[in-house]
Amino acid sequence: MTGIAVVLLSGGMDSTTCLYHAVNERDKGVYDDVLALSINYGQRHKKELDYAKVSCQKLKVPFKIVQVQGVFPSSMLTDKNRDIPDVSYDEISGVSPTYVPYRNGTLLSVATAFTVGASEDWEGKNERYLSSYPDRVEHALFYGAHAEDAANWAYPDCTPEFNGAVANAIYIGTYHKVRLHTPLQWMTKDRIVRYGEELGVDWRDTWSCYDGGDLHCGKCPTCRARKDAFRKAGVTDPTEYAD
Amino acid sequence: MTGIAVVLLSGGMDSTTCLYHAVNERDKGVYDDVLALSINYGQRHKKELDYAKVSCQKLKVPFKIVQVQGVFPSSMLTDKNRDIPDVSYDEISGVSPTYVPYRNGTLLSVATAFTVGASEDWEGKNERYLSSYPDRVEHALFYGAHAEDAANWAYPDCTPEFNGAVANAIYIGTYHKVRLHTPLQWMTKDRIVRYGEELGVDWRDTWSCYDGGDLHCGKCPTCRARKDAFRKAGVTDPTEYAD
Repeated sequence: MTGIAVVLLSGGMDSTTCLYHAVNERDKGVYDDVLALSINYGQRHKKELDYAKVSCQKLKVPFKIVQVQGVFPSSMLTDKNRDIPDVSYDEISGVSPTYVPYRNGTLLSVATAFTVGASEDWEGKNERYLSSYPDRVEHALFYGAHAEDAANWAYPDCTPEFNGAVANAIYIGTYHKVRLHTPLQWMTKDRIVRYGEELGVDWRDTWSCYDGGDLHCGKCPTCRARKDAFRKAGVTDPTEYAD
Repeated sequence: MTGIAVVLLSGGMDSTTCLYHAVNERDKGVYDDVLALSINYGQRHKKELDYAKVSCQKLKVPFKIVQVQGVFPSSMLTDKNRDIPDVSYDEISGVSPTYVPYRNGTLLSVATAFTVGASEDWEGKNERYLSSYPDRVEHALFYGAHAEDAANWAYPDCTPEFNGAVANAIYIGTYHKVRLHTPLQWMTKDRIVRYGEELGVDWRDTWSCYDGGDLHCGKCPTCRARKDAFRKAGVTDPTEYAD
């Protein structure tokens, strides 16, 4: 008997690639099932969550949104009155202006709680389903942190050092029931595009832009990283940009 | 320049002792200031939070309650329809019936986010106050996990192994701004009573009982642990029990 895989899904390129990776592993028999979890933490727009839902529907993966609001201090990613700079990540040094204090640590903690045993209905996969596994079965929590988020400590809660520490905390703190998996942690964004192509990711179902307009703005740090990733990977970018 | 100390306060004996410990350290010049944070995570009763507030008022410590609800699966500690067993912790083996999946990991993550820089007003201590510290100053987050919670893996997210792992995750994930302190982690509950006596803790301002009645029930696991702690410490128990 194998365990289940839970994917922390934002609807962006990285976590969507993680979702496809987990489904691929399931199809190889590594996991019994894949479930996806998104968290509404008060981000500027909910557009990425709509995209997360679309990918889950295509892959027939049960999907759930958890509300965790009022927890994070105000930041560019949670406050619409603050402007997102039109620069690339390369031009930013020190604490990233889009760093939300300990956001990823908190989202991973909430996802861990749900992985241990969500009592609320998860499209038919409820607590009984999860607790029907014997104690010795380990479940997987997938997290799409990658090497460009980690470079120069842009986002400290995306670094391999953080991932290792929090993986220990999660494993110990759940009676050894949940292991954190970070399959992209050593991949740059262009490598993720190439890996996603192998897995059949439909990039049109992913959203990167910090602004929540009709189209990707093309100018904010994450739009620039998205463009660069396709260009460096030599893969046609299907994204329509406003600029 | 020293940093600030934030205490994760439940209103029980252990975290209240941590609060007095942090205030004592502040008085010795180790910290500039002490702030306390309680989290309403949907526990059965809010009584302990009232007690947390009383201790903070006595010590003139700015106090804040954060709402984090709908995150944890149903458990004995969050569902009033489930009965708390009338046994002592010694009689419980395996997964504790009062274990809330990854609760402490999640509460520590939320407390970390607030320690880095709470934007909401914290009795006059706001974001500007916290961000006025230079980068190299480290702040402390106090957590009252103790040796009896850890014994036999009763609560895995109270063990020194968990504390060490999560301390690393917090330190790394906050650009090295927040360090987790667990001064009680090697103390049994009676040792905490003796230490609290030295610090001048008023135990009447603490609440242990899982039931939220007018008096401590005296029968639930945590009431039994409370009674035992005073008895073993040789300290008069000022608690009025219903039984």
